[in-house]
Amino acid sequence: MGEFELIRHYFAAAPCAQGGVGVALGIGDDCALLTVPAGEQLAISTDTLVAGVHFADPCDPFLLGQRSLAVAVSDLAAMGATPLAFTLALTLPTVDADWLQAFARGLNAMAQSCGVRLVGGDTTRGPLSLTMTVFGRVPTGLALTRSGARPGDLLCVGGELGNAAGALPLVLGERTAEPAVAEPLLAHYWSPQPQLALGQALRGKATSALDISDGLLADCGHIAAASAVGVLIESEKLPLSKALLTFLGEPAAQAAALSGGDDYLLAFTLPPAELPQLLADGWPVHVVGRVVAGQGVTLLAADGQDITPATRGYQHFRETP
Amino acid sequence: MGEFELIRHYFAAAPCAQGGVGVALGIGDDCALLTVPAGEQLAISTDTLVAGVHFADPCDPFLLGQRSLAVAVSDLAAMGATPLAFTLALTLPTVDADWLQAFARGLNAMAQSCGVRLVGGDTTRGPLSLTMTVFGRVPTGLALTRSGARPGDLLCVGGELGNAAGALPLVLGERTAEPAVAEPLLAHYWSPQPQLALGQALRGKATSALDISDGLLADCGHIAAASAVGVLIESEKLPLSKALLTFLGEPAAQAAALSGGDDYLLAFTLPPAELPQLLADGWPVHVVGRVVAGQGVTLLAADGQDITPATRGYQHFRETP
Repeated sequence: MGEFELIRHYFAAAPCAQGGVGVALGIGDDCALLTVPAGEQLAISTDTLVAGVHFADPCDPFLLGQRSLAVAVSDLAAMGATPLAFTLALTLPTVDADWLQAFARGLNAMAQSCGVRLVGGDTTRGPLSLTMTVFGRVPTGLALTRSGARPGDLLCVGGELGNAAGALPLVLGERTAEPAVAEPLLAHYWSPQPQLALGQALRGKATSALDISDGLLADCGHIAAASAVGVLIESEKLPLSKALLTFLGEPAAQAAALSGGDDYLLAFTLPPAELPQLLADGWPVHVVGRVVAGQGVTLLAADGQDITPATRGYQHFRETP
Repeated sequence: MGEFELIRHYFAAAPCAQGGVGVALGIGDDCALLTVPAGEQLAISTDTLVAGVHFADPCDPFLLGQRSLAVAVSDLAAMGATPLAFTLALTLPTVDADWLQAFARGLNAMAQSCGVRLVGGDTTRGPLSLTMTVFGRVPTGLALTRSGARPGDLLCVGGELGNAAGALPLVLGERTAEPAVAEPLLAHYWSPQPQLALGQALRGKATSALDISDGLLADCGHIAAASAVGVLIESEKLPLSKALLTFLGEPAAQAAALSGGDDYLLAFTLPPAELPQLLADGWPVHVVGRVVAGQGVTLLAADGQDITPATRGYQHFRETP
């Protein structure tokens, strides 16, 4: 048995690979088999993370395992889906048992937290990268897409924005901060919590939804385009954490909230009549703008002035030299 | 819009990405949505191919697109599943429009031939590699697994073995051959035809099945282990093509059939009573051995002598320097 064959056996023995609801056949055959209950659809999303592009190399393998699964599962949250299973395609330059054990522990921790089972994958030799494909189930017709926003809807987000982008100088070792500031920011970066329960609560209520991976401005552009509407964001309504404000100051904190990546919180549009009950039920819903007839995303200052920046996006990968 | 964003739009416009039976939502949202008919299960398989490890770099992008999808879909054939959809995670060092167009044409040709739809994926910058995840549907309880072989079953394969392994010196430019020899071998390597119809015909008949990717000896070892049986292979029954025999001579052709990789033909076990009807229906079924009580794989010469080689496997990846 080759060393890569051993790795496959190693993952097959992980707690998160031990079957579960909806998993008819797990790791070890030509295919896994999933059972999708009648009246439900299967939601599927694929994400690739490349060393030196999407994450620093070297990095802590436990945190990498945890974060990469969270990033993938966040797409299920954005559809209002209930997680079911995932596959992992892992490419490694060498086989390092300590690295693999720590990676698998991080993966397992997030898998247990999200209720998602490892059902298959591939392990190959090559430059470090990983591709996760996640599977969820959602009642037919109730998935949250990007295309249903209507003028008059509120634009909402599921929590404080910009923390992960704010953490980047800490992750890269370019800056330091006292623990009270650094820890919450780093936690957002390394352990984003997919907003699965919120996504499921928004079924039949939100008219559109996505998870914020490229910054609020860029991602609202996807809702505007898919729904053929305009989106107004009111800058003074952006929820910013105390840690981020302390670390960056207000202007840079606001920029991180608008154009920083990696938040993995939900952004969604909501008919105003749906808001009171969601707030009464305790969901973390922050209104940050509204949907209008028109197109594109416009950022408004407190006085109503258009302060939309020219550059909206976040470059997910850094150019490799 | 960045150049990688452009690539995503480019794949989304491909003919094979235009929806189809079972695809409720394709490329462009946080997730794709598949509908699995009542009474059926979803079969899932993931394969990664890395440049310089699983394929030569550079190589013809049309052939790469075609072959990588065929290799992935072959796992659906091995389960007796009907192809439904696939996702593509493509990592590229640079954006080369000619390369991408040729790759997409090859991908599209195989997707149309297999009846499988592109429903999502990811495109990232990094060393060239690709991960395909394929989805099929199979009536609940009728998937062909590796674990049902029983003593007394026949061991069968779905065609002539060793052609793809025989083609490798041609692929690598180490040898040449006249077109009558080279062309059929290279066709098996670059355009393996997943045996989807055969897999579906074997539902409820074969007791176990897989697709031969690592050579007959190694792959029969998976059936033996999963089914807790022994597998006997009779060397003189191996079906070998005229092209392979001409190119390699009989001993090397037999070795390619036993230990060469990349055949992507089905190997399966069959109660003897099922054989006559399958042959009468014209299925390409070659009996190459039988299942016995015991364990492991044994290779028998024409005189019944045990000639099992010590090394059975095929190293899928070459060690990178």
